[in-house]
Amino acid sequence: MTLVELRAGLDEQTLGRELYDCVADLYPICRSITGEGVRETLRRLQRQLPLTIHEVPSGTEVFDWTVPPEWNIRDGYVKNARGERVVDFQRSNLHVVNYSVPVRARMSLEDLRPHLFTLPDRPEWIPYRTSYYTESWGFCLSQRQLDALPDDEYEVCIDSSLGPGSLTYGECYLAGESADEILISCHVCHPSLANDNLSGMVIAAFLGRHLAALSRRYSYRFLFVPGTIGSITWLARNEPAVERIKHGLVLACLGDAGRFTYKKSRRGDATVDRAATHVLRQLGDHEVLEFSPYGYDERQFCSPGFNLPVGGLSRAQHGRFPEYHTSGDDLNFVEASPLGASFAACLAILDVLESDRTYVNQNPKCEPQLGKRGLYHPMGGTSPSPVNEMAMLWVLNLSDGQHSLLDIADRSGCAFDITRQAAVVLGEFGLLREAAQRCDERER
Amino acid sequence: MTLVELRAGLDEQTLGRELYDCVADLYPICRSITGEGVRETLRRLQRQLPLTIHEVPSGTEVFDWTVPPEWNIRDGYVKNARGERVVDFQRSNLHVVNYSVPVRARMSLEDLRPHLFTLPDRPEWIPYRTSYYTESWGFCLSQRQLDALPDDEYEVCIDSSLGPGSLTYGECYLAGESADEILISCHVCHPSLANDNLSGMVIAAFLGRHLAALSRRYSYRFLFVPGTIGSITWLARNEPAVERIKHGLVLACLGDAGRFTYKKSRRGDATVDRAATHVLRQLGDHEVLEFSPYGYDERQFCSPGFNLPVGGLSRAQHGRFPEYHTSGDDLNFVEASPLGASFAACLAILDVLESDRTYVNQNPKCEPQLGKRGLYHPMGGTSPSPVNEMAMLWVLNLSDGQHSLLDIADRSGCAFDITRQAAVVLGEFGLLREAAQRCDERER
Amino acid sequence: MTLVELRAGLDEQTLGRELYDCVADLYPICRSITGEGVRETLRRLQRQLPLTIHEVPSGTEVFDWTVPPEWNIRDGYVKNARGERVVDFQRSNLHVVNYSVPVRARMSLEDLRPHLFTLPDRPEWIPYRTSYYTESWGFCLSQRQLDALPDDEYEVCIDSSLGPGSLTYGECYLAGESADEILISCHVCHPSLANDNLSGMVIAAFLGRHLAALSRRYSYRFLFVPGTIGSITWLARNEPAVERIKHGLVLACLGDAGRFTYKKSRRGDATVDRAATHVLRQLGDHEVLEFSPYGYDERQFCSPGFNLPVGGLSRAQHGRFPEYHTSGDDLNFVEASPLGASFAACLAILDVLESDRTYVNQNPKCEPQLGKRGLYHPMGGTSPSPVNEMAMLWVLNLSDGQHSLLDIADRSGCAFDITRQAAVVLGEFGLLREAAQRCDERER
Repeated sequence: MTLVELRAGLDEQTLGRELYDCVADLYPICRSITGEGVRETLRRLQRQLPLTIHEVPSGTEVFDWTVPPEWNIRDGYVKNARGERVVDFQRSNLHVVNYSVPVRARMSLEDLRPHLFTLPDRPEWIPYRTSYYTESWGFCLSQRQLDALPDDEYEVCIDSSLGPGSLTYGECYLAGESADEILISCHVCHPSLANDNLSGMVIAAFLGRHLAALSRRYSYRFLFVPGTIGSITWLARNEPAVERIKHGLVLACLGDAGRFTYKKSRRGDATVDRAATHVLRQLGDHEVLEFSPYGYDERQFCSPGFNLPVGGLSRAQHGRFPEYHTSGDDLNFVEASPLGASFAACLAILDVLESDRTYVNQNPKCEPQLGKRGLYHPMGGTSPSPVNEMAMLWVLNLSDGQHSLLDIADRSGCAFDITRQAAVVLGEFGLLREAAQRCDERER
Repeated sequence: MTLVELRAGLDEQTLGRELYDCVADLYPICRSITGEGVRETLRRLQRQLPLTIHEVPSGTEVFDWTVPPEWNIRDGYVKNARGERVVDFQRSNLHVVNYSVPVRARMSLEDLRPHLFTLPDRPEWIPYRTSYYTESWGFCLSQRQLDALPDDEYEVCIDSSLGPGSLTYGECYLAGESADEILISCHVCHPSLANDNLSGMVIAAFLGRHLAALSRRYSYRFLFVPGTIGSITWLARNEPAVERIKHGLVLACLGDAGRFTYKKSRRGDATVDRAATHVLRQLGDHEVLEFSPYGYDERQFCSPGFNLPVGGLSRAQHGRFPEYHTSGDDLNFVEASPLGASFAACLAILDVLESDRTYVNQNPKCEPQLGKRGLYHPMGGTSPSPVNEMAMLWVLNLSDGQHSLLDIADRSGCAFDITRQAAVVLGEFGLLREAAQRCDERER
Repeated sequence: MTLVELRAGLDEQTLGRELYDCVADLYPICRSITGEGVRETLRRLQRQLPLTIHEVPSGTEVFDWTVPPEWNIRDGYVKNARGERVVDFQRSNLHVVNYSVPVRARMSLEDLRPHLFTLPDRPEWIPYRTSYYTESWGFCLSQRQLDALPDDEYEVCIDSSLGPGSLTYGECYLAGESADEILISCHVCHPSLANDNLSGMVIAAFLGRHLAALSRRYSYRFLFVPGTIGSITWLARNEPAVERIKHGLVLACLGDAGRFTYKKSRRGDATVDRAATHVLRQLGDHEVLEFSPYGYDERQFCSPGFNLPVGGLSRAQHGRFPEYHTSGDDLNFVEASPLGASFAACLAILDVLESDRTYVNQNPKCEPQLGKRGLYHPMGGTSPSPVNEMAMLWVLNLSDGQHSLLDIADRSGCAFDITRQAAVVLGEFGLLREAAQRCDERER
């Protein structure tokens, strides 16, 4: 099966529900940048795609960073004098500051207060906080919970461990016709947060599952890594392989009901930037952002020593939606329908990358006579031509070895799919052949 | 006489009336892509300019195309049972589908109906239809005529011929100081349609008549060709000559009352594109369109194997006005005044092309003292300077061998005419000389 | 002291008052393009900065121009029959047309009228007129004054002299670490006009005074020259030195209450153009104009034979404010506060030029770990970081030897000051070093 056929037969609604179910399955797990939560998550994703799980020992130096000790947690709570859990990790894993060191103590509310974090502006929501590189502990709770706490003596317990272990990440490589790679990366370190980034993880996993069954021009590499330290670790361990990455996408926040957002690579004019921009324009309302060195792991892929052509695809933008990094980013915040549409958009972008080729018009002097080949509407004909005539004229006019199909689609305003269809038909009639040196490869 | 002097003395109103009279003279002729209608049209145009009439035999191969059989028509009608002509070629040559094969038959309305073409949305107008490359026959009529036809037996007659003959086109070459050419092309294949394209034909012919009497920097080549097959035929027969074409315009739809439209060449930044854009901007409301591979014969001149710097000048846009390819495009749709103004606009564009030169300021370090040469307004003087001072300052400032007059006009916002006038005066005072290598020629 | 420290400690209000006092001190002097008025003005400016006063004899040829005879004036008036001065140079030096030849005569109002200049649209204001290169004489007066003159016999006296002498200009050179120069130029030829250009003169003088006390990367050259003939004279006498000018500003009209205007150099993308644009954008409402060959002495510096990277900084625009070249441009039209702010803006632009450098990220593969260096906000920290984190990320991401700090500031939207501060801190931690070949110097 080809990607074109997969897309043609795709049932977005059904697929969206499958994606949602997978998000729901992974939602309760308490993930962090290391530990059992990530391992369990990757094991479950192995049901979708052939994922290799890598373990990198704590203390390993990765460029300027060091793989941290491994963190695990079993329980955590604040009990009041009557022994009632007023803050309880079992109810939400957001309640304990991620990477909190173990603690077991009794203290007054006054002494406890510096360890409590709330969102006064969003009194119902629990914030999500981490302390990866500073030994510390704390609890996150809603402002309403905090307001209800009387002066009392509280029992505090965080039953966690922090010590030598390893950082865990998942990797899936699908070989294609070419050793040139398309990278799909997502972060897997957030606990019970649905959009950021269970949505990205399940879409990446499903992409891998479906692409594994297709014929592929490019090889694909899927990374499921803890944010920042995970991508840095992968880059440090795979530095020589990096030059094979010709296009890449970081996936995150793809399950909410908002419009699409594409964030360009540092290069700004990479083919993936143009492919994603083209696809989103066809899909309707969207936003394209210039690169900035903040956000998700494109920060690392686009650091100046790598400068990879990797952009970011999202709906809600990093840090720009109220539910971001709060308990508001729950299973109600993501929906099947946008998950399905996000998956389809990813396929459409990959389809452009797979299909973008440069052709040479074999009849470059004047137009070829399309009519004698049955490619032009007859007089008075009201039935549409099997192929878009304007797209054929554009492909013929611009196929001089200097314009790829994506160039032609962008300049003509014809959708890439229509443009490609025109090129296929023209090729069948011998009016086009692929250019010896493909300009869609020159920029790499 | 020079082009500048011709323009200065031009009486647009009188010329517009002459153009209109010429349109009216040619209007009744039934033209097609071959046949006597084209020949008669070209013969009448020979009154205006020294036109050579070429005949290319049917069956000649021209790139991917073949010159078709010649078509001629004497009469055509649909008669009702009482012998009345209910559709009559003698009333309008649009009534017979152009290139209809001969037919003589009696048939019911039901059997006739597939051969009848109307415009339901424009019930008073007769459509214009052709069937050049598919043997067929048919009648075009107004919806109102069709609605009035009762069930009846009809006599159908098309007294046409289709067989070996030739394709006819006209060509006029005016040698100039340089062998470099400016191409003016128009299509001559439409029957009684006034704007599309009698307006283009008569303006091209009048341009030839007037330019023949002038001193010319460039050589000029005027083509009067049937659309598509005519330009393809000319290109196939004149391939080596094509490289001498440095600028070109396809003229069509120049007699209606709408604003000007310029369609850029495929190159998009050819000098003719910039010259036409400059002139239309000076003239006021107008539209500049990017190139697209649809429209008139610029499609052929701008095919990738030629990629000539040929744009298109029109008022109403190809296919975008209701009267397009209907009997609504009649002698009431075109007017003397816009014909005259279109002629003047063509001259203005050609004048830019003729006059665009690159100069070198002979006093490049600081401004020259214009006052001591009488070129600067004296104190308290209220009479305007004989030459626009800002234009002089711009020409002096940018004449470094890198900017042509058109570049300077565009950057300064001064009209080209004013800019040239400043350059002439500065040249008279020895402050400018022409650059050895003219940058206005470099881009060719 | 450094420029950064000077700016940090600057009291704009106090400085604005000092600038205003200096404008007020110079206001009464009758300046022209030559003569005692310029000399006295330059002598007073020597209190501010170490100004060398140059004298260039009348008749000296400077490119296409000749240094004119020197003009001086002691008195001028029109007396009515009763001996009353109805127009009196002692009340305003604008009353006598600048460069008027001596005259002493009695004449009727009718005979006098061709020598009288008013502004009918601004009946209260006296116009400013000159006649440098045409021997003539005249009086300027308000329309109201003129309307009040009865038919009478008038005594006319202009007690001026016009003869061999010299053209006077001031120059101050401050050597810096590099022989590369920043040019600051202003015109000193206008009589009692406050904004045009006492404001420019005093700001230039104060810049010189303050910069003299600082460590400087660049050398600075300050020119106090009569408009047009003065800059032409300087360029003619210093032609070989011109190539050392890497950036330049012409200062004029900086004391009114309007927004800032920056007029780009002829190059349009010179570093000074980008620095000034950046600074004005940070300051708020402003206007950036493309270069045009009209205005102040940038006309000469940007003539094609020099094409220096010299822009113009103003508030009110040359010729675009009603008070321009009238008695309305008086001590009420300029104010201390905008003078102070203009001075500060000049310093900010110079600071960008002084500080713009290109760095290379020493940890280019992935981000360095800012947290372990105390450069990243700790968990839950609400106190702002000592350094803007986004600015650090931008500097790290773009410091690949291809982007200067100004490039980074423009692309990131961070103020240059913030960007530089980030670079300084990153440099202290060894994360940046200056590039061997600085791209901020390549364009020169």
